[in-house]
Amino acid sequence: MSALAELPVVVALGGGHGLAASLTALRRLTDHLTAVVTVADDGGSSGRLRQELGGLPPGDLRMALAALCADTRRGRQWASVLQGRLHSRGPLDGHAVGNLLIEGIWQETGDPVAGLELVAQLVRATGRVLPMSTIPLCIEADVVGTDSQAPDEVQVVEGQHAVATTSGLVQAVRLVPAAPPACQEAVKAVERADHIVLGPGSWFTSVLPHLLVPDLARAIVESSARRILTLNVASGHETAGFSPSRHLEVLAEHAPDLRLDTVIADELFAAGDRQLEGCCAALGAELVVADVAMHDHTARHDPLRLASVYRDIMMA
Amino acid sequence: MSALAELPVVVALGGGHGLAASLTALRRLTDHLTAVVTVADDGGSSGRLRQELGGLPPGDLRMALAALCADTRRGRQWASVLQGRLHSRGPLDGHAVGNLLIEGIWQETGDPVAGLELVAQLVRATGRVLPMSTIPLCIEADVVGTDSQAPDEVQVVEGQHAVATTSGLVQAVRLVPAAPPACQEAVKAVERADHIVLGPGSWFTSVLPHLLVPDLARAIVESSARRILTLNVASGHETAGFSPSRHLEVLAEHAPDLRLDTVIADELFAAGDRQLEGCCAALGAELVVADVAMHDHTARHDPLRLASVYRDIMMA
Repeated sequence: MSALAELPVVVALGGGHGLAASLTALRRLTDHLTAVVTVADDGGSSGRLRQELGGLPPGDLRMALAALCADTRRGRQWASVLQGRLHSRGPLDGHAVGNLLIEGIWQETGDPVAGLELVAQLVRATGRVLPMSTIPLCIEADVVGTDSQAPDEVQVVEGQHAVATTSGLVQAVRLVPAAPPACQEAVKAVERADHIVLGPGSWFTSVLPHLLVPDLARAIVESSARRILTLNVASGHETAGFSPSRHLEVLAEHAPDLRLDTVIADELFAAGDRQLEGCCAALGAELVVADVAMHDHTARHDPLRLASVYRDIMMA
Repeated sequence: MSALAELPVVVALGGGHGLAASLTALRRLTDHLTAVVTVADDGGSSGRLRQELGGLPPGDLRMALAALCADTRRGRQWASVLQGRLHSRGPLDGHAVGNLLIEGIWQETGDPVAGLELVAQLVRATGRVLPMSTIPLCIEADVVGTDSQAPDEVQVVEGQHAVATTSGLVQAVRLVPAAPPACQEAVKAVERADHIVLGPGSWFTSVLPHLLVPDLARAIVESSARRILTLNVASGHETAGFSPSRHLEVLAEHAPDLRLDTVIADELFAAGDRQLEGCCAALGAELVVADVAMHDHTARHDPLRLASVYRDIMMA
């Protein structure tokens, strides 16, 4: 824990709903919270905005900001406004209101980081939201099983949306460009952190990409902070059939130098995975198995139970 | 002045830049400020949004909200964000960011008045912004001089944008539908006001329309508040060649029952208009001639000089 602050200084890396779940839990423990967000989305409202206006895709950044809106009436209003979508039979259909606000503020500031800072101030967010890179990125993946005639042949699938929805089995992901510039404020936040939280989230398109941005990956690997990995509560579309330990193996394949301190696994998903403890140990990590899933069969983390586990780890 | 409040309760009616100038002055005098805004715009970003999403055109409402943003660093940021426009080669080009935010909040609330209240709270506006009617309106005008072959023939020009930019001379305007429902909150605000301020603004498309909404016009006519009319500092496109007294005559033609208490005229524009004092007297009004224009030849009111005149009138 930082000597200067009573509350832990935490950086959470990820994207989409997984990062939002992590932030919703972590904001209950600290104000010193920085979200570092993937910027490779090319689908939906973000993809269209990226194509029309250039610049970073705002969607995952918006979702993180909404997750950090104050837990007050006004904060909930803001979250609801940011997350709301326009409905029409015209070109605005489907755009998230928060995406349009972020784009407007980016045009105003001309600087994505300053613009996100302004949005965060305006919505009185509990913490900061930063992009992992200052340039928009693409994801490409090696995938097998898309061609039933040649089930073992590796195909290259391009684009985050295509990778996230491929019918094949993802083997590995890469960023295009291959070594993008990290957001320097994100690197600094990692360097100053007491705790770094990776996951949960879409494994190949939201969790691993941070480890493929060289300066950011180096900061994470070299940090003296506690590195916590939160596994998903079930295998998702991108990792269909993956056990918890297979998730860890994939992580290690993409970031061979990375050591972890703690791995959080849901007790139901971890049950029967006999290699999990060994996989954690191989990465240097203690395994924490806990009941962290929602009990409504939606394959999501329960923010309060997840918060209680983070608290036990961080305040220990 | 209201017995319950130390500061005067003021309602300002208008649209566009004229109303923004009025609000920028009045907000220096009171927090009890309600803007009642025309909703007939069919040009630019508002026109496109009205066509694509239905509902009220947001542009004049946005401009009023921006004028009421707090005079602090954050307030100025908000005003700048609301007024900013997206630039692209796609369908978002030219949309004001505040228009998109208002549309998003309207989709969220399903109620234009509640939505504007929420926007006002979010941007911490000094006062309320209400539409003059709860339904989008059209303006049509009788115009002469558009056809050089028949210079005296009256043509009907349809649409606020077309009326505001016609090459002919506007004789009269009407609303379509002819007797639209007033926004009830606007009627109540007029009923409770100590001072009602009409103008400045585009005479036919921003100032007169309020007097053509039956319930709103009745509330203004029957109010015990002081009725103040602020004339423009020069004749504009819609009223090219009109003297100050001709502006008053046109007003009286459109609202025969209306009596005024005070007419504010700029000293340069009023100079040489020998009928002005008589026109004011015929409407029941005292004429106040003052230096209220900007001294930069931009034909705008100076907010501080205008505020000083409002103060002298309201605090008398």
